[in-house]
Amino acid sequence: MSSFSRRSLLKAFAIGGATAAVSPLARFASAQAMERAMPTGKLASNFHIHNDMPWALEARRSALGLAPITPQSAFFVRNNLPTPDESIIANRDAWSIEVAGVANTGRITLAELKTLPVRMEAAVLQCSGNGRAYFPHEPSGSQWATGAAGCAIWTGVRVSDVIEHFGGAAADELAFLTATGSEELPDGVDPSQVVVERSVPKAKGLQDCMLVWEMNGAPLPLVHGGPVRMLVPGYFGVNNVKWVKRIALTEEESGASIQVSSYRFRDIGESGRPEHPSMYRMPVKSWLNGPGADDMPVLKGQATLYGVAFSGERGIDKVEVSVDEGQNWQEAELIGPDLGPNAWRSFILPMELSAGRHRFVSRATDISGDTQSRDAIPNHRGYGHNGWYDHGLEINVVDQLPASMTANATAAGSTPTPAAAAGTAASSSSSLSAEATAGRDIFLTQVQPGCGVCHTLADAGTAGAIGPNLDTLKPSVDQVMRAVRQGVGAMPAFGAQLSETEMRALSVYVAEATSG
Amino acid sequence: MSSFSRRSLLKAFAIGGATAAVSPLARFASAQAMERAMPTGKLASNFHIHNDMPWALEARRSALGLAPITPQSAFFVRNNLPTPDESIIANRDAWSIEVAGVANTGRITLAELKTLPVRMEAAVLQCSGNGRAYFPHEPSGSQWATGAAGCAIWTGVRVSDVIEHFGGAAADELAFLTATGSEELPDGVDPSQVVVERSVPKAKGLQDCMLVWEMNGAPLPLVHGGPVRMLVPGYFGVNNVKWVKRIALTEEESGASIQVSSYRFRDIGESGRPEHPSMYRMPVKSWLNGPGADDMPVLKGQATLYGVAFSGERGIDKVEVSVDEGQNWQEAELIGPDLGPNAWRSFILPMELSAGRHRFVSRATDISGDTQSRDAIPNHRGYGHNGWYDHGLEINVVDQLPASMTANATAAGSTPTPAAAAGTAASSSSSLSAEATAGRDIFLTQVQPGCGVCHTLADAGTAGAIGPNLDTLKPSVDQVMRAVRQGVGAMPAFGAQLSETEMRALSVYVAEATSG
Repeated sequence: MSSFSRRSLLKAFAIGGATAAVSPLARFASAQAMERAMPTGKLASNFHIHNDMPWALEARRSALGLAPITPQSAFFVRNNLPTPDESIIANRDAWSIEVAGVANTGRITLAELKTLPVRMEAAVLQCSGNGRAYFPHEPSGSQWATGAAGCAIWTGVRVSDVIEHFGGAAADELAFLTATGSEELPDGVDPSQVVVERSVPKAKGLQDCMLVWEMNGAPLPLVHGGPVRMLVPGYFGVNNVKWVKRIALTEEESGASIQVSSYRFRDIGESGRPEHPSMYRMPVKSWLNGPGADDMPVLKGQATLYGVAFSGERGIDKVEVSVDEGQNWQEAELIGPDLGPNAWRSFILPMELSAGRHRFVSRATDISGDTQSRDAIPNHRGYGHNGWYDHGLEINVVDQLPASMTANATAAGSTPTPAAAAGTAASSSSSLSAEATAGRDIFLTQVQPGCGVCHTLADAGTAGAIGPNLDTLKPSVDQVMRAVRQGVGAMPAFGAQLSETEMRALSVYVAEATSG
Repeated sequence: MSSFSRRSLLKAFAIGGATAAVSPLARFASAQAMERAMPTGKLASNFHIHNDMPWALEARRSALGLAPITPQSAFFVRNNLPTPDESIIANRDAWSIEVAGVANTGRITLAELKTLPVRMEAAVLQCSGNGRAYFPHEPSGSQWATGAAGCAIWTGVRVSDVIEHFGGAAADELAFLTATGSEELPDGVDPSQVVVERSVPKAKGLQDCMLVWEMNGAPLPLVHGGPVRMLVPGYFGVNNVKWVKRIALTEEESGASIQVSSYRFRDIGESGRPEHPSMYRMPVKSWLNGPGADDMPVLKGQATLYGVAFSGERGIDKVEVSVDEGQNWQEAELIGPDLGPNAWRSFILPMELSAGRHRFVSRATDISGDTQSRDAIPNHRGYGHNGWYDHGLEINVVDQLPASMTANATAAGSTPTPAAAAGTAASSSSSLSAEATAGRDIFLTQVQPGCGVCHTLADAGTAGAIGPNLDTLKPSVDQVMRAVRQGVGAMPAFGAQLSETEMRALSVYVAEATSG
């Protein structure tokens, strides 16, 4: 936020305080909005920030690497409502979820979920609106290009095991699995207009859905729905409800706007209605991420094009790349571990590049035989774009890279640098024992090279940075004795240079001088 | 570092400045040591900090999750020498590596490496000394228990493709692949004593070794050897040289101390010599990470034990768990994606727990049929511990968890909270057009609910946090028109409430008020 708008906001608050009721929470939320740091673990340079409240962070094309997983630092965020307070992850295991539509309704904590059979699934999350920016009718909403998608390994339990834990479905006619998020809802708005509550068909729910608490081996980050979110592998992001507070088998779909009218695939100009298809399974899709994304110049000559491909529930059979807008196609190579049918695959294609601007497109085929079409199906909200044409990567190939990109990094090892000089400080700590004082002299002068060449020790005035910092390590007499006698790691043995008495004095000195 | 020792160090410097030559670099290094933040991406609470210069960070047992990859936030660090300066990752693609022992010796930059066939490998890195803390003879060095190990997906190119790029091996008798790191070396010490340079047999080098620049899909972090490190899949960490500045096919092993005498497996009391086995392939190993690691109490009843198992180059066939110190064994279940023979596998075992202290051990068997022994082979430096007994997990099972662990997190959704109040500020920005001024009134009062219930807009004095922050979004007139007419996401359509003129005025207002 510019300092201008910050000033305006502060001014507005001053006015508001006099003439309108501004709740303490609103002030707090707004103060947050003014000084918002990125969510924990996110690297700002990896993202286009479409919005900061609620968060809408799109991964830059150049920020997606080659691995079939996306690290937290570059994983997109699209929240429908503001992120709940950090306090909800203070005690993750105590997080409690209501379970309804089962024989024995009740609640289950995360600690209890963890006692059910643990499962892992690698799955792509992708916002329904990913690719919206490419629709010519300019649908409203965040103008996502490629980066509202990421792939992670999720750890949790199957919803079917949770349902079983509560005695199974309450009745056969319950046709949906409905999950409710615990976002704060504002006063003054019909809750059904804003609540994040989504239903998926029961068959999908019991076959694949999971309640997950880990993402790529770390506790599920707050901004991604921690402590616990729903994972609907292969389905668009909106179904993967965050901060789940309730799951239920229900007879009908949720009546929430997000289910009934939003996230419905319909013609341009039409309002969403339940008879329109809901944004469920993700179709086959691919795009190139490099080289040369985000206007980074690429040197002419040999290059390796790379990108990702996925298809909800189906996995990828092959990816082709075209350099001539689809007249001819070359098959790319799928590389790296295959993490399963809901994950994305990385692909590469070596290519000789001439100078000039080039545009490359990719086209994936999934294991069911579905291939990306050239164009997306136009639809009111700009959902589900998977046309290969619009996702092309345009790059600038140059005869010579700018100097700023070829400057050699200073080779750290090429300039021998005195890391430290052995101190010869005349005065010694007054509190040392006689033995330690003798040891101090050994530390500084009686061994070659002096201990201070490699070790930092405040009392000796040395600042060597090769071996452990002794002030931090605070070794015992025995530890120093062993290291001096035998060597340790890169440290040579000094047993041949020093007598037992000298080694002992040296060790007593290091222990005494660092025991404070 | 305590304030006491900081004072001592400052004092020592003052003295040293008068009587000894302390280089500016040494002062700098020491100042760094005093105020060191964790390396980028590391979460301090996940680690035991054995040393901060050079870094020695051990992942807490409770910090390792269930996924077969370890996130950056919990991946251990063990550096032999201080981390090079951040400047070496300022221009990653310009990083240059010397290639020798080939037909055409030369240099290759990371940009050029990226034009060779890109490959990915999931592999465990583990310090040779992981488990050292369990040896009864108390070998010197960092007292690693289980956490000097992690598993990641690495992206790079095969060393064999690099060698091929330079015309192949210079001669048949070159028997080793030798890699040299670019850590700074101190004056006053024989470089061969401290240089990080390691050799592995050529066959291994050409079959498996990679130069890698990505770790779990992110650019290789500086502290892990970025821009480029060696990956020797299945071999102990020391072989995976960081900040590689040179690779060479060589007739002999490196003469560096780290190759010749350190990292040699020998009897207690013996000095390391070339005839002792080098720390190459990692043997089969496993341990439990939870529940209840790091003294977290566990509630009695049903629980799921979990841990990791791996074997260098060989992958895991099965893991067994014993509750009676190895008298009886139960087979655990391997879960999650199998990332290949050098990665680790996650395993779980459901278990009914009674109150009291319990100790569980795990025992893995790899696909070649090797099974962990009960005890480690005693050796001078405490290397390669893979005995199942010492790696047991002791947990405290309680009848009732302490209140601090069962307190329900405040359910964010349970307390309806006014997120904002529509402002009714009397004064308006003087710079608005007449149409916008009319729109401002519509924004605040003419639609139900007022726009400010959901949107922050400084000019209007509103701080709603349900929809996008308009000051951040800075929408165009057309964008606002579309959203108001049709709705967008959770936002309802207002087309039925407002005339075209009103919608236009409202849109002009939002655009004008946010265009600053």
